[in-house]
Amino acid sequence: MVGKLTWLYQLSKAGKLCVPAMNVNDSVTKQKFDNLYCCRESILDGLKRTTDVMFGGKQVVVCGYGEVGKGCCAALKALGAIVYITEIDPICALQACMDGFRVVKLNEVIRQVDVVITCTGNKNVVTREHLDRMKNSCIVCNMGHSNTEIDVTSLRTPELTWERVRSQVDHVIWPDGKRVVLLAEGRLLNLSCSTVPTFVLSITATTQALALIELYNAPEGRYKQDVYLLPKKMDEYVASLHLPSFDAHLTELTDDQAKYLGLNKNGPFKPNYYRY
Amino acid sequence: MVGKLTWLYQLSKAGKLCVPAMNVNDSVTKQKFDNLYCCRESILDGLKRTTDVMFGGKQVVVCGYGEVGKGCCAALKALGAIVYITEIDPICALQACMDGFRVVKLNEVIRQVDVVITCTGNKNVVTREHLDRMKNSCIVCNMGHSNTEIDVTSLRTPELTWERVRSQVDHVIWPDGKRVVLLAEGRLLNLSCSTVPTFVLSITATTQALALIELYNAPEGRYKQDVYLLPKKMDEYVASLHLPSFDAHLTELTDDQAKYLGLNKNGPFKPNYYRY
Amino acid sequence: MVGKLTWLYQLSKAGKLCVPAMNVNDSVTKQKFDNLYCCRESILDGLKRTTDVMFGGKQVVVCGYGEVGKGCCAALKALGAIVYITEIDPICALQACMDGFRVVKLNEVIRQVDVVITCTGNKNVVTREHLDRMKNSCIVCNMGHSNTEIDVTSLRTPELTWERVRSQVDHVIWPDGKRVVLLAEGRLLNLSCSTVPTFVLSITATTQALALIELYNAPEGRYKQDVYLLPKKMDEYVASLHLPSFDAHLTELTDDQAKYLGLNKNGPFKPNYYRY
Amino acid sequence: MVGKLTWLYQLSKAGKLCVPAMNVNDSVTKQKFDNLYCCRESILDGLKRTTDVMFGGKQVVVCGYGEVGKGCCAALKALGAIVYITEIDPICALQACMDGFRVVKLNEVIRQVDVVITCTGNKNVVTREHLDRMKNSCIVCNMGHSNTEIDVTSLRTPELTWERVRSQVDHVIWPDGKRVVLLAEGRLLNLSCSTVPTFVLSITATTQALALIELYNAPEGRYKQDVYLLPKKMDEYVASLHLPSFDAHLTELTDDQAKYLGLNKNGPFKPNYYRY
Repeated sequence: MVGKLTWLYQLSKAGKLCVPAMNVNDSVTKQKFDNLYCCRESILDGLKRTTDVMFGGKQVVVCGYGEVGKGCCAALKALGAIVYITEIDPICALQACMDGFRVVKLNEVIRQVDVVITCTGNKNVVTREHLDRMKNSCIVCNMGHSNTEIDVTSLRTPELTWERVRSQVDHVIWPDGKRVVLLAEGRLLNLSCSTVPTFVLSITATTQALALIELYNAPEGRYKQDVYLLPKKMDEYVASLHLPSFDAHLTELTDDQAKYLGLNKNGPFKPNYYRY
Repeated sequence: MVGKLTWLYQLSKAGKLCVPAMNVNDSVTKQKFDNLYCCRESILDGLKRTTDVMFGGKQVVVCGYGEVGKGCCAALKALGAIVYITEIDPICALQACMDGFRVVKLNEVIRQVDVVITCTGNKNVVTREHLDRMKNSCIVCNMGHSNTEIDVTSLRTPELTWERVRSQVDHVIWPDGKRVVLLAEGRLLNLSCSTVPTFVLSITATTQALALIELYNAPEGRYKQDVYLLPKKMDEYVASLHLPSFDAHLTELTDDQAKYLGLNKNGPFKPNYYRY
Repeated sequence: MVGKLTWLYQLSKAGKLCVPAMNVNDSVTKQKFDNLYCCRESILDGLKRTTDVMFGGKQVVVCGYGEVGKGCCAALKALGAIVYITEIDPICALQACMDGFRVVKLNEVIRQVDVVITCTGNKNVVTREHLDRMKNSCIVCNMGHSNTEIDVTSLRTPELTWERVRSQVDHVIWPDGKRVVLLAEGRLLNLSCSTVPTFVLSITATTQALALIELYNAPEGRYKQDVYLLPKKMDEYVASLHLPSFDAHLTELTDDQAKYLGLNKNGPFKPNYYRY
Repeated sequence: MVGKLTWLYQLSKAGKLCVPAMNVNDSVTKQKFDNLYCCRESILDGLKRTTDVMFGGKQVVVCGYGEVGKGCCAALKALGAIVYITEIDPICALQACMDGFRVVKLNEVIRQVDVVITCTGNKNVVTREHLDRMKNSCIVCNMGHSNTEIDVTSLRTPELTWERVRSQVDHVIWPDGKRVVLLAEGRLLNLSCSTVPTFVLSITATTQALALIELYNAPEGRYKQDVYLLPKKMDEYVASLHLPSFDAHLTELTDDQAKYLGLNKNGPFKPNYYRY
């Protein structure tokens, strides 16, 4: 869960939220498109534009196997990288296993990997101790939700030399000559060094606009000073607006089928807890 | 959503449920393992054991892109089949697009496909009209939640000849000699013609046992006559019990990190609406 | 290269071949279909029918990254296994790296893997020493070209107990209770425990028939007492005969394009050394 | 086969070659690294840097399924594109089928695709007629071996407007407002709009250097005025020099195994016709 959202829920819990809020970040389309599908492409793009690294045969550790981590891993694996995962959550860890990734502690692989990518939303996931043990020309970058995942501050010490080799690319140089390639000074790679496809922007903007319209139009009392998830029907509506650009043709339920399933023919089609 | 579960929720809605019930089917581990990961393997196994079909180059239509459909499609695509999807839900349809599948109405591809697989939980998804239009030696099977997805009854007419060619395999023969290969008479292929790995059974059985223990031990008043989802912590516990068999090593949060994320170090690690 | 073929070339080298021979095994269609594409499917099929093993998350070592090994690895990786490779040939080893597999010596991973698969054409690739170090319930099987790859004879010693648990499946039991699951007594898994799709048989049979016809019809002097590769044009002809079953539509060269490329419009389209 | 190489072989055939020549382009390492593995990455990189296109769900036609085409298709499919192939060679076409691609004539899909990529080495593969039928904002680019694959000259007519929107990106605008996005004016995308990883350069440069050394050092008479393929042992040597950067560990043949296989323990390990 992202930083700003955590605060919103904490405000709500503390009774300090003074207006209704809509958590659009956790709508299905936002999660899957802005995180999973977009990061699947932007991790490759961000790494290529900054480092020209070849993915084939590279050993990569990805910290965090949420939607962002899943996207990064799928892309890197598909292009021939060998990917390791670190996780705190046993469910996500088990998913990583079933998807063909070894789940390790960062210390187990830090000496051997060519690339380290953080996608946790957490802080100090990559510490100075880890950075000290990386091999020469290891690339370090962050795809998560803040600039705290890599402890960049710990690298601002006198014995290390920083060399800016290109926009968004720093070499941090150890006294023995070892270089670590730090991207975007630990800020988000996907925002700093890649682009966001217009298609993803369209989905996000549509979702946000619909949420605002809903909050504005809702009859008094529907929403209190709390944080709400986007009504599923709107999520489905956002998706349906974007199907024509793929020339995708939806199937309609017959009356008989809708009755059998206990569904309205126009949706929503899934219970709220459905995971997609 | 499966049939029996629909009825349970309908009972609950109607106020006719006389004990608390736990919906273990929608626990994360159950959904992902019993449906996504298990079907990814059993669709291949079931088709091979019954028909020895080669997957490479075959055109396949999969009806429904839920967890079961996603598993079937991933496996078939990986082995070189060309897969088309039908969907009623625009969100799942958009996922299918992003995963590289064309989303079509069944009629658009029914004449050209080599295999038809249903994974909808719906009824009469494959009708006699579709069956009439299939090409010779098209294979038809069901991976969904009941034996209603293919309208098998419509094939019990005098002009069609049934020929049992092997256990679980019938050739239905049209007057012009065309044969459709019907598997398991439209019942679940994964139960009829494949095996369930002990690993998946272990996950499912553990989840069910924990749910029963929770219902039995819960202090009075925690559960009313309603349908509940498995508490997330138990879902995580089931997962953690199965990690050692993959030699997977979880990372533990530091106190500082747990505080930053507002989480207990032992979980649960995700909000209830998290989709994995 | 397979055993019988080695002998054929050795006979030829020694001047002892008394008729012309056609090496159909190394025709493109045979290599790719009988080896790469067929094994991609039969490794999964053979393992499932004998052991019902779940592939997701399993650690597998594949000895040999030729066509057979490439097929096995692609399938297992796609279904979520973590695959290691052993190789003697640096070119194949580098291909394995670029395809995302760690290249190791068997000893480095033998204690941790769940499945060992040989595809080398060599002998004693898996020795008693390796078998002694495998973990409990490790599965061992052979997809290569003879029954010599696993040193099965070394397991016929008094301190080990053999238990036949199913057709083609033996448990070999160590004094401490450890069991190794040996498939088909080390003979070819794809022939013993899987089926060969009719499509592949058709390609192989067509190739063999065409080779015989060519040898029979060839004007005197075209072939001497030597081993020949199938003329490329025949290889292309075999392929073209099988395209309609995939509804594949070839593009024809214009006269101008054929002239530009220096090719005959009807092929052959590639130089003899082309690798596909 | 590339243009310059074609000329070399034509010179040789005509007896006009005045020195021995080494065809390093067709060495294994060159073919696989410079073409297959490098293009697998550079097609994504080139398209992203020029157009920021999202790959997921896009319909793409790739003309030519040689090494370059295979690399492009594998990458695009892995990132969720739906890929169609055109081919003149039935063997490559059958490979495309088995790899899960529909093989079509360009005319069958030209109206529906979002991206057209040429990898043929041929000329006029994409004609003005094709360009006229593309849909609005279709992207057209060339990954083949010369700037002749797309008939760019045919677009230099008065009724079409060219608009340079960015370096290497032109919009060609039809009278009805339709825009086709032409990359690098039809020259090689991978050279014009992407980078070549140092790893690939190292392989290519090593191969070329070894070929020159061999030609220079060879005893008189070993090479005549002809075109030669790189001796396999050198190809293997180039590969072995690059294994340590992947921490890959080769297995050595025992004496007994080498004898069994009829091989020298130090290679070459494969017959000359082996395809990898």
